[in-house]
Amino acid sequence: MQKTIDLNCDMGESFGHWTIGEASDEDLMAFISSANVAAGFHAGDPNTINRTVKLVRDYGVGLGAHPGYNDLQGFGRRFISASNEELVNDILYQVGAVREFGRYHGVRLQHVKPHGALYMEAARNEDLSLHLIESLRAGGGEVPVMCMGGSATYEVGQRLGHPMVREFYADRDYGDNGAIVFTRRVGRPDPQAIADKCLRACIEGKVKTVTGREVDVDFESICFHSDTPGALEIAKAIRETLLAGGVTIAPVSTVLGLG
Amino acid sequence: MQKTIDLNCDMGESFGHWTIGEASDEDLMAFISSANVAAGFHAGDPNTINRTVKLVRDYGVGLGAHPGYNDLQGFGRRFISASNEELVNDILYQVGAVREFGRYHGVRLQHVKPHGALYMEAARNEDLSLHLIESLRAGGGEVPVMCMGGSATYEVGQRLGHPMVREFYADRDYGDNGAIVFTRRVGRPDPQAIADKCLRACIEGKVKTVTGREVDVDFESICFHSDTPGALEIAKAIRETLLAGGVTIAPVSTVLGLG
Amino acid sequence: MQKTIDLNCDMGESFGHWTIGEASDEDLMAFISSANVAAGFHAGDPNTINRTVKLVRDYGVGLGAHPGYNDLQGFGRRFISASNEELVNDILYQVGAVREFGRYHGVRLQHVKPHGALYMEAARNEDLSLHLIESLRAGGGEVPVMCMGGSATYEVGQRLGHPMVREFYADRDYGDNGAIVFTRRVGRPDPQAIADKCLRACIEGKVKTVTGREVDVDFESICFHSDTPGALEIAKAIRETLLAGGVTIAPVSTVLGLG
Amino acid sequence: MQKTIDLNCDMGESFGHWTIGEASDEDLMAFISSANVAAGFHAGDPNTINRTVKLVRDYGVGLGAHPGYNDLQGFGRRFISASNEELVNDILYQVGAVREFGRYHGVRLQHVKPHGALYMEAARNEDLSLHLIESLRAGGGEVPVMCMGGSATYEVGQRLGHPMVREFYADRDYGDNGAIVFTRRVGRPDPQAIADKCLRACIEGKVKTVTGREVDVDFESICFHSDTPGALEIAKAIRETLLAGGVTIAPVSTVLGLG
Repeated sequence: MQKTIDLNCDMGESFGHWTIGEASDEDLMAFISSANVAAGFHAGDPNTINRTVKLVRDYGVGLGAHPGYNDLQGFGRRFISASNEELVNDILYQVGAVREFGRYHGVRLQHVKPHGALYMEAARNEDLSLHLIESLRAGGGEVPVMCMGGSATYEVGQRLGHPMVREFYADRDYGDNGAIVFTRRVGRPDPQAIADKCLRACIEGKVKTVTGREVDVDFESICFHSDTPGALEIAKAIRETLLAGGVTIAPVSTVLGLG
Repeated sequence: MQKTIDLNCDMGESFGHWTIGEASDEDLMAFISSANVAAGFHAGDPNTINRTVKLVRDYGVGLGAHPGYNDLQGFGRRFISASNEELVNDILYQVGAVREFGRYHGVRLQHVKPHGALYMEAARNEDLSLHLIESLRAGGGEVPVMCMGGSATYEVGQRLGHPMVREFYADRDYGDNGAIVFTRRVGRPDPQAIADKCLRACIEGKVKTVTGREVDVDFESICFHSDTPGALEIAKAIRETLLAGGVTIAPVSTVLGLG
Repeated sequence: MQKTIDLNCDMGESFGHWTIGEASDEDLMAFISSANVAAGFHAGDPNTINRTVKLVRDYGVGLGAHPGYNDLQGFGRRFISASNEELVNDILYQVGAVREFGRYHGVRLQHVKPHGALYMEAARNEDLSLHLIESLRAGGGEVPVMCMGGSATYEVGQRLGHPMVREFYADRDYGDNGAIVFTRRVGRPDPQAIADKCLRACIEGKVKTVTGREVDVDFESICFHSDTPGALEIAKAIRETLLAGGVTIAPVSTVLGLG
Repeated sequence: MQKTIDLNCDMGESFGHWTIGEASDEDLMAFISSANVAAGFHAGDPNTINRTVKLVRDYGVGLGAHPGYNDLQGFGRRFISASNEELVNDILYQVGAVREFGRYHGVRLQHVKPHGALYMEAARNEDLSLHLIESLRAGGGEVPVMCMGGSATYEVGQRLGHPMVREFYADRDYGDNGAIVFTRRVGRPDPQAIADKCLRACIEGKVKTVTGREVDVDFESICFHSDTPGALEIAKAIRETLLAGGVTIAPVSTVLGLG
């Protein structure tokens, strides 16, 4: 199945004097191939974006804009009943901000990945996905969009011939329908178990569900979260296990064969 | 003196459901050659920016980013003791946002003009001006910066060989030292008197001060404010008086002879 | 039916340098008996609240806290999927802020009325209404809550024995089920028609629906909106028509027979 | 000198999903006698305030409102050139919010302590201090205000006969003029050294300055910061050392002999 895969993680999720997660962005950068940089509406601020994009450049990682709902307090995890036009304007605003720091540091914007509740809303809202992808296309440059396989976002992107990046969720559980199941976790997940799950998904295209069945998965990128307990060990285990298993880890632009 | 001059005005200063000023942005667009688009920190929001940049495109006006202090309540008119690095990051963030809407609507970013207290801070803070202009230059494209003649911003820009745009303030009074004097106005200013002042400044390079003396003025752009009472009549009077007096009104890029 | 009725209006909806609506708060104060003061999350800011509560005191009007969703850009008209606990904390925060300015100006807090989408969410969300009213009761003082007749908020309040204020919406249309219908209005409404509708509702307890039928209405307060075109004329017409028709206009505390 | 002293600490400085400092608020509560609860403008949010005031009640600690500049990103440590009227309105707004959660949990507001740059601004700005204390007095209840000894805030409070609480800064260094010196610390401070400094200040009324001289100190409360490395050990050491040295630790209201 997949032999070259992207490994992405949310980055730059500090705000002002506050930080989040036990692993630093810099520690994680060495293991990933693409970074989703929080763009200031749900997390991040101009100083944090500047620092994070500089790290992205120093580590040669793909630069992603990670726009969210305008809700710092809720960390972008609360749905807001804005119109699709409002949401796409929010997204363009944030994409432009991250792109500008890329411009400043000499790094091209590689991809866009909506955050949290906005990612989920786009996944089920075809009009939002359509308006989003068309707006990105209007600006030129065909910036790939990360999404769930089977989502409205993916379907719309395919229809428009836009480069899309489906994700495999390393630190989330799968249901029998192939969608993520939000289970209440106790304690720290086992990094090696996560890594083995990722390798199998890459090689065999299969993942075991919460009921013990198997479902097919297709994806171009593996996603894990920097605020999952043990994120650094998880990142390390995934990277080493994939490499040892013959899988190449490379940024989205390489996986998709883009410029 | 100047035979081709830019006429600029702050635009897109609404926020959410609130509007400001008696003249609409669209009404004013017909008279100006460059628009400073509020970028969301002191005024404006993604929806307003989107609408305003669309107007900029429709009216063929030069697109300016108008970044301010992060202070909606104070409309960017209150100084905040942030570090120069923080302020430049705030500016890059906002410039990127406006540039992105330009990208979406097919309009190149023409200039950057800091707003209110941030403009005044840059005028006296050489390090801030230096860091700002160097950061804009790092991103490439040599985007002109609007400033006061004689300010630290202008001096630094000159030294770096950066394209700078000095302003003449149509609806402000001048002191004997050539700087603006904040006088308490009563009632609505006379549009024709303002227009005559502008024409004379363009042709003779002189302006009468509040004490009745005359001082020299050098500038590439005339600035008026959309929230000055009678802004629309002022815009109309300036445009007609300048044209009748043999002065050409053109965007900054033309005045400076840039691409 | 009702012979003494409250007349309420949203007030203090400016933010920073922005104002909204054609009528000033001060002009409207002379006609109403209760003011819902925007509390800073959807509109209003500490300076505006201070000015508005001072007006409330000067005009002897009942002081209401008008908390909304934390969404300035959306003016509190966009639903946010926060938990009920989060929403009640948001409400307590805003109620406290308005109560404090009342304390400063020597005015007791008379009532609480959630704003916009939060009012509608409480109307259909029994748990939110329950948590809200119990939290207000925990603080003591039995502050009346404004709501729709027939809403979950009203039902919960009745059950708890809490003083509740049902509203009649002067400048909204009614459907056959007695609920408000959001119709797209063209032009300015006729103030006298609105006033006649209010008088009939007070005297006969009936209102004509959009289909021409009649439904019963029970209420303790009449609500109109300061941003409805012609708000000042509407306020004047309602007041004069009710008084001429033998209806007394008095604050909620009087209507409910509270201290 | 002092035999009964208050021990205060800033609390509730989380925001949304972000936390700050290595010690939890709950762990620290057991050692202090007064808590300054961040009020939402520089840190804290309604949910955090609710949780923190509940802890204040559970631990029987004095409840303080800790209002700051409206600057989450800068954590209230950046000066904003707002007018004194604007600042006092910001403070009243925040005091009201914290007081309301006290009301909800059955705890009376004990004191007010401005935060960070606002505390420093009040210390040197007599008009701000005057307007602030008069505004608090207008609302009744004579809520004590925490301040620096020798500051404009203290002088104004004394003149008005308002109950004032001077602080001794446990984890800051003193200069020869008796004012705090901001020194760049390396590593973690020694908890016992801090505790010994506090005990000597309580018993002898003296502290050693950065140059090795001694200055007199008068105070009613000892302040330490929850984000100083080792805050929990510092709190523990101060408490145990003071108690062993015959000093009683009690809330401001007890120290001042108020209700």
